[in-house]
Amino acid sequence: MRSRGITVLIIWLLGSLMPASGDDGYRLWLKYDKISDRAYLRECGKALKSVMVTGDSPVLRAAHEELVAGLAGMTDRDISDVQTLTRGGVVVAGTFESSPLIASLLSDVDPGTTGKEGFIIRSVLRKGKRVTVIASDGEKGVLYGVFHLLRLVSMGAPVNDLSVLEKPAVALRLLNHWDNLDRSVERGYAGSSIWNWHLLPDYISPLYKDYARANASIGINGAVITNVNADALVLTAQYLRKVAALADIMRPYGIKVYLTARFSAPTEIGGLPTSDPLDPAVTRWWSDKAAEIYSVIPDFGGFLVKANSEGQPGPQNYGRTHADGANMLADAVAPFGGVVMWRAFVYDNNVPSDRAKQACNEFIPLDGLFRSNVLVQVKNGPIDFQPREPFHPLFGSMPSTSQMIEFQITQEYLGCATHLVFLAPLFEECLRSDTYARGQGSTVADVIDGSLFGQSLTGMAGVANIGSERNWTGHLFGQANWYAFGRLAWQPGISSATIADEWIRMTISHDSRVVEGISNMMLSSRETAVNYMTPLGLHHIMARGHHWGPGPWVDGGRADWTSVYYHRADTAGIGFDRTVTGSNAVSQYFHPLSEIYNDPATCPENLLLWFHHLPWDYRMSSGRTLWDELCNRYDSGVRQAERYSAYWKTLEGRIDDEQYRHVMQLLNIQVKEAHWWRDACLAYFRTFSRKPFPAGIEEPENTLDYYRGLKFYYVPGIKERE
Amino acid sequence: MRSRGITVLIIWLLGSLMPASGDDGYRLWLKYDKISDRAYLRECGKALKSVMVTGDSPVLRAAHEELVAGLAGMTDRDISDVQTLTRGGVVVAGTFESSPLIASLLSDVDPGTTGKEGFIIRSVLRKGKRVTVIASDGEKGVLYGVFHLLRLVSMGAPVNDLSVLEKPAVALRLLNHWDNLDRSVERGYAGSSIWNWHLLPDYISPLYKDYARANASIGINGAVITNVNADALVLTAQYLRKVAALADIMRPYGIKVYLTARFSAPTEIGGLPTSDPLDPAVTRWWSDKAAEIYSVIPDFGGFLVKANSEGQPGPQNYGRTHADGANMLADAVAPFGGVVMWRAFVYDNNVPSDRAKQACNEFIPLDGLFRSNVLVQVKNGPIDFQPREPFHPLFGSMPSTSQMIEFQITQEYLGCATHLVFLAPLFEECLRSDTYARGQGSTVADVIDGSLFGQSLTGMAGVANIGSERNWTGHLFGQANWYAFGRLAWQPGISSATIADEWIRMTISHDSRVVEGISNMMLSSRETAVNYMTPLGLHHIMARGHHWGPGPWVDGGRADWTSVYYHRADTAGIGFDRTVTGSNAVSQYFHPLSEIYNDPATCPENLLLWFHHLPWDYRMSSGRTLWDELCNRYDSGVRQAERYSAYWKTLEGRIDDEQYRHVMQLLNIQVKEAHWWRDACLAYFRTFSRKPFPAGIEEPENTLDYYRGLKFYYVPGIKERE
Repeated sequence: MRSRGITVLIIWLLGSLMPASGDDGYRLWLKYDKISDRAYLRECGKALKSVMVTGDSPVLRAAHEELVAGLAGMTDRDISDVQTLTRGGVVVAGTFESSPLIASLLSDVDPGTTGKEGFIIRSVLRKGKRVTVIASDGEKGVLYGVFHLLRLVSMGAPVNDLSVLEKPAVALRLLNHWDNLDRSVERGYAGSSIWNWHLLPDYISPLYKDYARANASIGINGAVITNVNADALVLTAQYLRKVAALADIMRPYGIKVYLTARFSAPTEIGGLPTSDPLDPAVTRWWSDKAAEIYSVIPDFGGFLVKANSEGQPGPQNYGRTHADGANMLADAVAPFGGVVMWRAFVYDNNVPSDRAKQACNEFIPLDGLFRSNVLVQVKNGPIDFQPREPFHPLFGSMPSTSQMIEFQITQEYLGCATHLVFLAPLFEECLRSDTYARGQGSTVADVIDGSLFGQSLTGMAGVANIGSERNWTGHLFGQANWYAFGRLAWQPGISSATIADEWIRMTISHDSRVVEGISNMMLSSRETAVNYMTPLGLHHIMARGHHWGPGPWVDGGRADWTSVYYHRADTAGIGFDRTVTGSNAVSQYFHPLSEIYNDPATCPENLLLWFHHLPWDYRMSSGRTLWDELCNRYDSGVRQAERYSAYWKTLEGRIDDEQYRHVMQLLNIQVKEAHWWRDACLAYFRTFSRKPFPAGIEEPENTLDYYRGLKFYYVPGIKERE
Repeated sequence: MRSRGITVLIIWLLGSLMPASGDDGYRLWLKYDKISDRAYLRECGKALKSVMVTGDSPVLRAAHEELVAGLAGMTDRDISDVQTLTRGGVVVAGTFESSPLIASLLSDVDPGTTGKEGFIIRSVLRKGKRVTVIASDGEKGVLYGVFHLLRLVSMGAPVNDLSVLEKPAVALRLLNHWDNLDRSVERGYAGSSIWNWHLLPDYISPLYKDYARANASIGINGAVITNVNADALVLTAQYLRKVAALADIMRPYGIKVYLTARFSAPTEIGGLPTSDPLDPAVTRWWSDKAAEIYSVIPDFGGFLVKANSEGQPGPQNYGRTHADGANMLADAVAPFGGVVMWRAFVYDNNVPSDRAKQACNEFIPLDGLFRSNVLVQVKNGPIDFQPREPFHPLFGSMPSTSQMIEFQITQEYLGCATHLVFLAPLFEECLRSDTYARGQGSTVADVIDGSLFGQSLTGMAGVANIGSERNWTGHLFGQANWYAFGRLAWQPGISSATIADEWIRMTISHDSRVVEGISNMMLSSRETAVNYMTPLGLHHIMARGHHWGPGPWVDGGRADWTSVYYHRADTAGIGFDRTVTGSNAVSQYFHPLSEIYNDPATCPENLLLWFHHLPWDYRMSSGRTLWDELCNRYDSGVRQAERYSAYWKTLEGRIDDEQYRHVMQLLNIQVKEAHWWRDACLAYFRTFSRKPFPAGIEEPENTLDYYRGLKFYYVPGIKERE
């Protein structure tokens, strides 16, 4: 009776307010629920029954707390601390340096093997007792090792014969928060910013620590906490106290805080008549500001800068170059070990003939001119986080410059927070793209991890999808994108399938059939979205402003902010001619890629209309005409979305109730919006192709005028009403 | 060992993501945790072991679900449904009409005794078996009865000899949400609006149902879900679908949805050239709009209107009266049973000599001119939700008009979401005030409940403090104010002490010493805030715009939006002369109150400077001069806030950890800000009094210039940056 009562109580406590409620998503992939497989529970209970964390520091205390909490939760036992190795089943964790015991348990390991952030996890027999060692050259490595072990247990991996060596491939693994000081989040779809500036530094929300834990668990070691469209206010003493409070919370989890630097800050908050980067008073202002920042945040990471782009001020306002601007800031933070990340996402006030070419035009001439603590931060593609783009031609084109990549985790162009689109395949596709910069086998990943050009200052940034919604990301599957970014920043070679498998098991279910079904859905979901939004290389045809729904008809105003600029549909055909006889953007890619892209016969079909304007009856590899293929792709995207919804329905009762209901509602929205995308785009493009729909493709539900006339207000992620 | 492990697990499960975390506040006062007192657990387990809800409808299903969940949680047992009364320990719930069984169990009760919303709970012996009956004339009464029984159990009340008859004193018990369609909340301090307009109607957040449950549990039966500063957009078909989805969720909990009506909607969204309420096209537009609304929300409650106030459009724009405007809308909704709530919070474009007088001047002449389905909604005091105001002189002055009262639950002028200020004493003080409208004993409550003038259309509105913060209200103790409003709207005679006792036991602790300590803090907290902010009848001396901190120096711009207009401090003295020789606002009160207020010797000291401009050396009842008394009041407020913080520290380990930490941080902020209020106000008023501080009062920590120079940005609750 008592034990039944306790079971009831446990079930009750697991819930939130509602009688039949379940998992609200707050715990992310760090659920630490009791292991359900009995044999595995016994195995872990025996192998991982006590811990010994050698050394003492904030980072090691965080590692210790996490290890105990995680093991206690999953093995359903008290986890004791031991001081000596008299029994087996102990997890020993610490740095080589601080612990002679660890050095002796792993006597074959040379110093420097793991580096400060890497780690070894190994099952070791000592005097007949089995212990599990987590060791690193640095305490952050110990913390990452702890999270890795907990992940192995969460995944149900064998724990008796462990031999793991992991090291991050990239030095700076950062989230970029486009969070404003008023708590709005640009392109954020998960509620307001988690940073409660008004209450900082006096009120420390429990969210902050849990945010830091989640990031540490996937190896993220930095957070740019303010929007690239920057507000100088955050650099004032009043706000730096608030930033410092956040840095204090994140420090034990190995996370450095970075800020965006408003280039005109010397004028706006410093009272200087100019912000010219070559003006000595400006240089001094930034040096003083850096010193002030480091006096309250000794491990401050540095600045991220968006300059001379979309209205942001920058060095060009004073006739200076991006390098002048970046180097001035780099000099300010260099004495303290800080870095400057300078975004290559720029465009001119003059509309270029092809915006895709602009970053190369502006930045390649600057190669070699940047300070050693500057990274040029380049978006994955040359336009702007589209469902599919070719990789950015800057990658590989600046061999003497540290280049970091910027992915967008938040789904600005991918259905906001209501579409299930697993982004690992998008990230992976880009990272594995061959730039041919040093001949075949020069992948984007090789550029990013520094191996191609021998750089040690390397980085990967992801624009966060995090907000104050209870489940952090709005859509449960948004968590998978945050997770995937961290995993790939740690190890760009890891596959999307592996990431999906890990995330599903930790977040939703261990049932292998469920895992397989959800994994299939996730792994195909990006292609599905490409199909119902922008198949065959189409891009930038979404509604103006909020970027949420379709808007292929968008015209007027600045040309490269319209859709017609990009799709160029006319009665002759569709697509942007970027060949040598067109904008010649193909020439920004290395041989032989430039030739491959230049020829529609060799250009990958999924990028065809990115590089080519082709007639409506152009013959595709399927044997269909371009028009028919376009129709089929749009339709297949819709059908696939419908399949997701139908599949999810079969999960009722097999997964957590609240997760089920939450995702079911969102998948139904996705189906509806996939229809909307298909119908609106095909109704529009038909006015140019003047051809009938191929057999099996339904007429759009409404007229083109209907779709063009739809108005939405207060769409999240932007500040405009409409 | 095993049971210890389970204990650890339970502690773990009680938490959220963090190892040592606890109650995040989401469950509000509906926690339904297992009863900790063993004897009481046995008693309830025996008396309340199964349920029988007769009849079937959405409301009764909601009642059933709640009853089962609540009893299962608290008694830690499965609660079974029974169809017949063969055993004892059954809770039988239903309406008299639908259930012959209930009618027979309560055969002495006449039809109509409870009304549709009231209920009887009675322990009955039937064939030797004890059953608990919850019965009502209406299904909403059954729902309220269920929540009442669950509250009794949550409180630890005996359940074997119940005999309860409860009926609401007021018909419309409404929350007013000042929530905008962009999810900002005017004067909201608990994050963004819980209404996710973008995702409605397709995504139904679990929050909505829990919001409805919480309201139903305290008898709230309506929600105006949009800001009084209204956006006509919500009246479009696109948004009405969203509103209808919310109404569908709230209906089973007895809650009607209301909207604010933008008076210029016929022009803004209807394409009409005018919104003149006497124009036939305008009248027709509103009638058609009402019909459209009721076609999707059959039980739509009606409109709340803020017109010709603070820039809102209204009938006066067309030379019409408030009555013309209200009646036009009232005629539109009357065929469907809707009401119009017309706010009396108005002020002229011309600055009045005394803003406190304006509502009476404008509305008393209209008494008797409003349709029978119009309520005039009057704020509790004549200015604007100050820490203390006299009751509004309109109460009792419009005998032929239904008047409802508007309280502010959100703490616009009371420290936003960081000050612990229990508002029940403020509400109670107002409700118990004697208007003398029909001689002694004509309290505000008697006006509001309709008894004084025989009205049946009665109402009480509270401006909600609810947002998407996990604990709904930002400050845990903000929940108590939501709770208190509901309880007082149900029964204006209930005491603050009773409400505090209920809330603490359901939310924090059953430990009687803890309950007593927290109750003492709560019950004195409003007076504490009055003392450190606006003692002795001072009012409206807060900072401009955000209303958060002190700003007695605010001057310039519209006079009645400044502080100096209200405190009138000069070297001669301080206070607003509203006597017969001053603005004569006293004359708006009935005899003998007008005379009592008119004479400083009889005027209550806590309203002294509201009604009188008095010299700095005016002798107070304490024997101190006015200046010394003012200093002492400010200082005592600070001291009291410090005592709260010190007391709360003693609760560490005696209450939930997360609740402890959350409130501890906020109380420390409150202490800091109490100092700020005292120091800034005294430093400022000293420039007029030119007197030293009395013994024991510390010098302000900073100079007056420092306080005047403080700037804050992005303060919650307003849209301006500063």
